[in-house]
Amino acid sequence: MELVLIAIGCGLLAVVYGIVTSGQVLRQPAGNQKMQDIAAAIQEGAQAYLGRQYTTIGIVGVVVAVLVFLFLGTVAAVGFVVGALLSGVAGYIGMNISVRANVRTAEAARVSLQGGLTTAFRSGAITGMLVAGLALLAIASFFYVLVGIQGRAPDDRTVIDALVALAFGASLISIFARLGGGIFTKAADVGADLVGKVEAGIPEDDPRNPAVIADNVGDNVGDCAGMAADLFETYVVTVGATMVLTALLVNTDVASLTALMALPLLVGGVCIITSIIGTYMVRLGKGQSIMGALYKGFWTTAILSIPLIYFATAYALGDLNAVIGGGEAAGLDVTGAVAEQTAGFTGMDLFWCMMIGLGVTGLLVWITEYYTGTNYRPVKSIAKASETGHGTNVIQGLAISLESTAMPTIVICAAIISSYLLAGLIGIAFAATSMLALAGMVVALDAYGPVTDNAGGIAEMAHMEDEVRTRTDALDAVGNTTKAVTKGYAIGSAALAALVLFGAYTTDLKEFSADLGIGANSVDFSLSNPYVVVGLLLGALLPYLFGAMGMTAVGRAAGNVVLDVREQFRDNPGIMDGTSRPNYARTVDLVTKAAIREMIIPSLLPVLTPIVVYFLIAWVAGKEQGFAALGALLLGVIVSGLFVAISMTSGGGAWDNAKKYIEDGNYGGKGSEAHKAAVTGDTVGDPYKDTAGPAVNPMIKITNIVALLLLAALAGHGG
Amino acid sequence: MELVLIAIGCGLLAVVYGIVTSGQVLRQPAGNQKMQDIAAAIQEGAQAYLGRQYTTIGIVGVVVAVLVFLFLGTVAAVGFVVGALLSGVAGYIGMNISVRANVRTAEAARVSLQGGLTTAFRSGAITGMLVAGLALLAIASFFYVLVGIQGRAPDDRTVIDALVALAFGASLISIFARLGGGIFTKAADVGADLVGKVEAGIPEDDPRNPAVIADNVGDNVGDCAGMAADLFETYVVTVGATMVLTALLVNTDVASLTALMALPLLVGGVCIITSIIGTYMVRLGKGQSIMGALYKGFWTTAILSIPLIYFATAYALGDLNAVIGGGEAAGLDVTGAVAEQTAGFTGMDLFWCMMIGLGVTGLLVWITEYYTGTNYRPVKSIAKASETGHGTNVIQGLAISLESTAMPTIVICAAIISSYLLAGLIGIAFAATSMLALAGMVVALDAYGPVTDNAGGIAEMAHMEDEVRTRTDALDAVGNTTKAVTKGYAIGSAALAALVLFGAYTTDLKEFSADLGIGANSVDFSLSNPYVVVGLLLGALLPYLFGAMGMTAVGRAAGNVVLDVREQFRDNPGIMDGTSRPNYARTVDLVTKAAIREMIIPSLLPVLTPIVVYFLIAWVAGKEQGFAALGALLLGVIVSGLFVAISMTSGGGAWDNAKKYIEDGNYGGKGSEAHKAAVTGDTVGDPYKDTAGPAVNPMIKITNIVALLLLAALAGHGG
Repeated sequence: MELVLIAIGCGLLAVVYGIVTSGQVLRQPAGNQKMQDIAAAIQEGAQAYLGRQYTTIGIVGVVVAVLVFLFLGTVAAVGFVVGALLSGVAGYIGMNISVRANVRTAEAARVSLQGGLTTAFRSGAITGMLVAGLALLAIASFFYVLVGIQGRAPDDRTVIDALVALAFGASLISIFARLGGGIFTKAADVGADLVGKVEAGIPEDDPRNPAVIADNVGDNVGDCAGMAADLFETYVVTVGATMVLTALLVNTDVASLTALMALPLLVGGVCIITSIIGTYMVRLGKGQSIMGALYKGFWTTAILSIPLIYFATAYALGDLNAVIGGGEAAGLDVTGAVAEQTAGFTGMDLFWCMMIGLGVTGLLVWITEYYTGTNYRPVKSIAKASETGHGTNVIQGLAISLESTAMPTIVICAAIISSYLLAGLIGIAFAATSMLALAGMVVALDAYGPVTDNAGGIAEMAHMEDEVRTRTDALDAVGNTTKAVTKGYAIGSAALAALVLFGAYTTDLKEFSADLGIGANSVDFSLSNPYVVVGLLLGALLPYLFGAMGMTAVGRAAGNVVLDVREQFRDNPGIMDGTSRPNYARTVDLVTKAAIREMIIPSLLPVLTPIVVYFLIAWVAGKEQGFAALGALLLGVIVSGLFVAISMTSGGGAWDNAKKYIEDGNYGGKGSEAHKAAVTGDTVGDPYKDTAGPAVNPMIKITNIVALLLLAALAGHGG
Repeated sequence: MELVLIAIGCGLLAVVYGIVTSGQVLRQPAGNQKMQDIAAAIQEGAQAYLGRQYTTIGIVGVVVAVLVFLFLGTVAAVGFVVGALLSGVAGYIGMNISVRANVRTAEAARVSLQGGLTTAFRSGAITGMLVAGLALLAIASFFYVLVGIQGRAPDDRTVIDALVALAFGASLISIFARLGGGIFTKAADVGADLVGKVEAGIPEDDPRNPAVIADNVGDNVGDCAGMAADLFETYVVTVGATMVLTALLVNTDVASLTALMALPLLVGGVCIITSIIGTYMVRLGKGQSIMGALYKGFWTTAILSIPLIYFATAYALGDLNAVIGGGEAAGLDVTGAVAEQTAGFTGMDLFWCMMIGLGVTGLLVWITEYYTGTNYRPVKSIAKASETGHGTNVIQGLAISLESTAMPTIVICAAIISSYLLAGLIGIAFAATSMLALAGMVVALDAYGPVTDNAGGIAEMAHMEDEVRTRTDALDAVGNTTKAVTKGYAIGSAALAALVLFGAYTTDLKEFSADLGIGANSVDFSLSNPYVVVGLLLGALLPYLFGAMGMTAVGRAAGNVVLDVREQFRDNPGIMDGTSRPNYARTVDLVTKAAIREMIIPSLLPVLTPIVVYFLIAWVAGKEQGFAALGALLLGVIVSGLFVAISMTSGGGAWDNAKKYIEDGNYGGKGSEAHKAAVTGDTVGDPYKDTAGPAVNPMIKITNIVALLLLAALAGHGG
């Protein structure tokens, strides 16, 4: 349990970092009165939205908590509530820092680019460390209480179910937050652009546009709070699933098993330390390259993590060359067909698997930068296609979005094979865990984006010098890439985590077979079983349907924004003269209501589908085929979700930066026909990259977790 | 063999229908000299393109034929050549009728809507009957020669390999023709629109636009010849795969097996008769509804097919309640896990499976009409979204394209389950066969579209009365829906056919296990095998990469068209005054070269990927895992391809008709801002629906067939 206590210590360190750095950020000058007024309006809107969002989610959460309590007992219900609450807290604090850092970033950018970068990045780092720290604290403390204090065996069913329920709580909040925030931010953004830039011919972030505050609120509730909840979920699910799978598969004594289950926590802990060190390396070099500055932080963290993960593994497991587990340990196949692979693995094997995870993270960062950065072929090709009009811009953007799935898929396939060869399914789980161990740093890179975006908006609205806007724009362009990076990283880790969850599902099926009333190996997951094919197809459908709902929701809500703004312009002509202040709060309120209304049905889709599919197929063809179809559905949703999510997030980032590339003076620059076409592409990319695409990640996890809980409930684990 | 002879007779009947109806069409008046000149230019361009395309494909074909000969022997090589040649012939004749019917349709539309419809539909029906007839003749005659004349057993390996090779020939030509034609038609279309409508401000099909002839050529080589080759392939592969699977799985005496293998041919034969009857029912009713007229033909065919399929089944199998096969017959699972389902099936079960196939066809037609017709929510929602600009048009179009996958998937899943419950995998095969039996009618509905599109172009260029253009536009709008219908139908049948091909793959693996040097049940297709997951992911990647290549190719080729036309306008100012004739042939030639160059690499992707994946995984993890990954790749490509193809073809059709809906006077009509936005959506939809989307269908089949041939080659089947 000492290992778990170290992890808890590291988690607390992250919280302390958050508090100290918050103090630093808040002590910075907040600019003049006008800037502070604008920031206050944004802050108020964001708090009002989050308040209402969490109330709505709270109602759903209470209902689900009662169900979890009834079907799975008290400990699981407590796990669910802890996961849900901390997920909400991570998003809430992140948003609160972000709405205070925006105006300070604008003020700091008045002095220098470095100043703006430091303030914005620190704010991002606070969110990052809190996400990783709280996630680690949640799992580690819960495990400590159940195993260390209450003295349960680490592979006790109560512990396993509680970890799964904790992950469920985090996921459920996260899908609502990601989708609700995503709809809010893009409805406001698209609506504001359409009615402001296109119809009224006023620039982006013009204070005369009643939707402009809503747009800035959106950055905070979507790109910051929603993203933080999403990554919190990814962390908890991945680390939790690794621990659960270890408990289910590894046959060894209690002390060794406890150490092995604590290892992911310890790795997460040491990587918080390397992430904190990394944050201090984010400094502009001679070339004033912002991406370069961020990379310094990222690579410092990644490289320092290598020795620390090695020492952590050695410390936890002792002899790195001793064989652990054996028997079922590395074998994946419930039918036992892959007999030669059940030979166990060593600590050194696990270390290499974790190195693979770090390698995947690095490669995904690099690939995403290639597809969304302004220096490379993809973005330039979209910018060039804009010369021949709106249509060719969109065609080329769609082509790039389809193409951008190829390299990540190949990297993920290589990671699956190599970590499986090293240590079987447990190897894949540890690769996923080490990916997530860097979450603090990755979230920091991402969360800095919306702060700079907001800072730019404030600079525009407060009529600050052009230089400030130029600096915040430069920071923001890099933010588009880092935002896409986080999404690619989250979905990539989801592909590995989903395999782990599927492994847990098949193992549970076998273990519960008597309780479920089926034969021990009677569920046929072979591709030759047509119910498996049906499951794959229905699973593959989910991201499409979910994406359709998300896109439609944004379109509809943006349409409402347009109508509202038109009405304000008509009823109050003073707005356009600048003599009268628009009613910002009314637009914020409208978007808030629309986002909350629109998020509910799509969020419930992945919760209800596994249950409906199981009962339907079981009714038609028997329980065994129901479980087969349900298992296949879990893989179908990841096989299709990976592509839908990557294509949407990379494609959207590329469109956005193609516009920025033109605004930098290429192909005619701002105001040219090419620019107009690029604005269309950017608008299309908005809901792609910030609403539908990123929400696929929690959706995949929810589907998997609901299936696991359904199994536990059907097997009658009350208690 | 009598059954096969009846099928051959029906195939010949289709050819006779083609000849007779061609005479009727060609005897119709071809209009004035101006119209004939334009038609001649289109004809010349189409012939030049197809000539060059078939030369290029011929070179690839000869290389592949030699490889097939070396690895699989003479009979298989002959099968390959026959399949390839007839696929080419079907496309070539279809195109030749189409380029002659276009001008006659324009002339007939001068008199009445019914006249235009009759001429265009007859031309489509010729293509339809030739596609179905030649496909049926190819398989039936080949089977007759090998089994009836040469006296081989119907499940002799030579017969099976030859049928697979025949399908391979058809598929290989088809992917080149679909993709090459698709790139040609959309490069010309998009290029002509961009430089004509958008830049020069001249209307669509204006004779001053040098790309206008290329655009009309494209309708013939892409939507007619390419589509015909595609459906020929779909027919041959589906019926061929059903026969192959029957030979592999059903344990019965030679006479019963021959009858069962001949049944798909007989069903195809009788449905040619019902299709021919159906073509005579296409008449406008009182409401002058064009879709209604086409539906009369379709429903007549579908309903008449029910009793005829019943009698054909009874005639072929005798007692419809006798149990056939048993043993392995209905069991899918190579590991034998699904023991209770190996009970055999009756003729009546097969009849019901074929009814399921007809039901799926009807439902897919209906769903596609809902998503692409101008009377329903989806198209109207895109039209409405155009009011707020280009961006919202595209967002809503993408949302609809994602959504349009849901109902077809559910229908296909229901069909898989119900036909499997009736007669196992053989049941699924017969459901797919009966879908394809209606191909003659479905192709007729589709091939009528490009003829009316061309007729409209000719009417515009020859300055015919506005009324003619109004009539051809009305015909063309329905053509957009029927084109989407065919694609949805082809990809839907591909989902079933791919399952059948996968069944053939697993059965072959088991049968060849000794020759392949693996254990009889040593290949683990379980979803818990990570190599299966890797195969699924790599398979799922193929349609994305292929789609990206197709979209990029169109964008690049369209860009070249824009440059060429700009140069012609600059060098020859007389063109815009109407005093000088543009150099149409130069643009046609440019698009021809571009299309041929761009089609090669994407077409080879599905041919080479299965081979590369097998050898790579076999090298890393052993032969067994290589075969597992390859098998999973086959399912991955269909699981993802189904969604990519349906979303692209339905989405593209919806965008096109949203534009037409606005042009009909809604949301401001022609020339309004909404119309401009809708034109953007239409441009985006063009390569979606006519290049990348439809080519996914042959791509799926090629991947599967290459895998089957690879198995045969590795097992050392030289002839």
